[in-house]
Amino acid sequence: MQFFSFWRSLASFRVRIALNLKQVPVEVILVDIDADAHRTDAYRKVNPQMALPALVTDDGTVLVQSLAIIDYLDETHPTPALLPAGALGRARVRGLAQMVACEGHPLLTPRVRRYLDRELDLRDSQQSAWRRHWTVETLAALEGHLAGHKATGQFCHGDTPGLADICLVSHVTAAVNQQINLSPWPTVKRIHETAMALPAFAKAHPSVQPDTPEAIRAK
Amino acid sequence: MQFFSFWRSLASFRVRIALNLKQVPVEVILVDIDADAHRTDAYRKVNPQMALPALVTDDGTVLVQSLAIIDYLDETHPTPALLPAGALGRARVRGLAQMVACEGHPLLTPRVRRYLDRELDLRDSQQSAWRRHWTVETLAALEGHLAGHKATGQFCHGDTPGLADICLVSHVTAAVNQQINLSPWPTVKRIHETAMALPAFAKAHPSVQPDTPEAIRAK
Repeated sequence: MQFFSFWRSLASFRVRIALNLKQVPVEVILVDIDADAHRTDAYRKVNPQMALPALVTDDGTVLVQSLAIIDYLDETHPTPALLPAGALGRARVRGLAQMVACEGHPLLTPRVRRYLDRELDLRDSQQSAWRRHWTVETLAALEGHLAGHKATGQFCHGDTPGLADICLVSHVTAAVNQQINLSPWPTVKRIHETAMALPAFAKAHPSVQPDTPEAIRAK
Repeated sequence: MQFFSFWRSLASFRVRIALNLKQVPVEVILVDIDADAHRTDAYRKVNPQMALPALVTDDGTVLVQSLAIIDYLDETHPTPALLPAGALGRARVRGLAQMVACEGHPLLTPRVRRYLDRELDLRDSQQSAWRRHWTVETLAALEGHLAGHKATGQFCHGDTPGLADICLVSHVTAAVNQQINLSPWPTVKRIHETAMALPAFAKAHPSVQPDTPEAIRAK
């Protein structure tokens, strides 16, 4: 399979974690969004929407959207499972994941930042206030659903990492990039630390990818 | 089960379609977002995130996020199936659904409109340009993935309605509300018309709910 990825893309980060947890080998193709490589004809043939990530299966089928790709990987490579066995648990984990993927993250993407900058001509302080506002909203939403819930364990749902943790970690990474102090959301902070201690998460982090710029690369 | 819904909420609309397709009986509880009923203590006890929709199962478990709720309904009430049987087909349908739920819709929600209005003090013309821009982006993304694809049939995936159609219809409803001419996206337009001809979709539409204001109610 071919996996189209970009170091900074938080949706690519999510898929990288899933690939690592499941130890699925892929050919990684780096798409430099900063150089508009996602807008080239070559990439548009893969994904006409020009968004990352994309996974191309061995028969040439193109899969898009990070959660859909992770679901596919979970169905085709069931071990370790990224969703719990019961329907109620699965709904809880999907709900937590979608708080990030359907609420927080969409407001922080490069295309939105570009619109705020070029179409609305917002000042830098307004742009950073926007990012902070939506990042914090989702941190609070996650904490509200995780703290004190009987199903919350070492991870978002029990004691093994799964889809909700993958999304939580990607969102906390956006918060850390903005130097947001996580102490108001202790459950989120704890789960982020627990997950990032695992090699599958740590090796997927934006700061250690082959295309991570030298100035940003984790030492 | 209790279903917390609001007539205008497009995410509630999605769950209403799924409930209708599967003929699952629920007690509908109307939450008037325009009157800030989602911010009351009563609703915060249901969903601390104060977002709609929510589904409360008979054992009191609260499920949030429209796609997670629909997945739950699909797992617990498998007929008619809202996802295809194969992993590749499921990934395609989930990807199409997430183009709406993780990209288009999050930029059009009341909380974002409130931020544009109150925090950024955008003019009406800037706010409508914002809504139009993101609505059109997702219409184009859907058309790009649907038009000419061998799996596209009468509906997004084959000849029976499913999760992708539910999301497509909710998004086209946002476009219609803005009087956007759909002719540049003929496949999206056709599938919307085909789906809305089905009673399960038509009866779930925002214009015909018990809490739809008289001035808006479809005659």
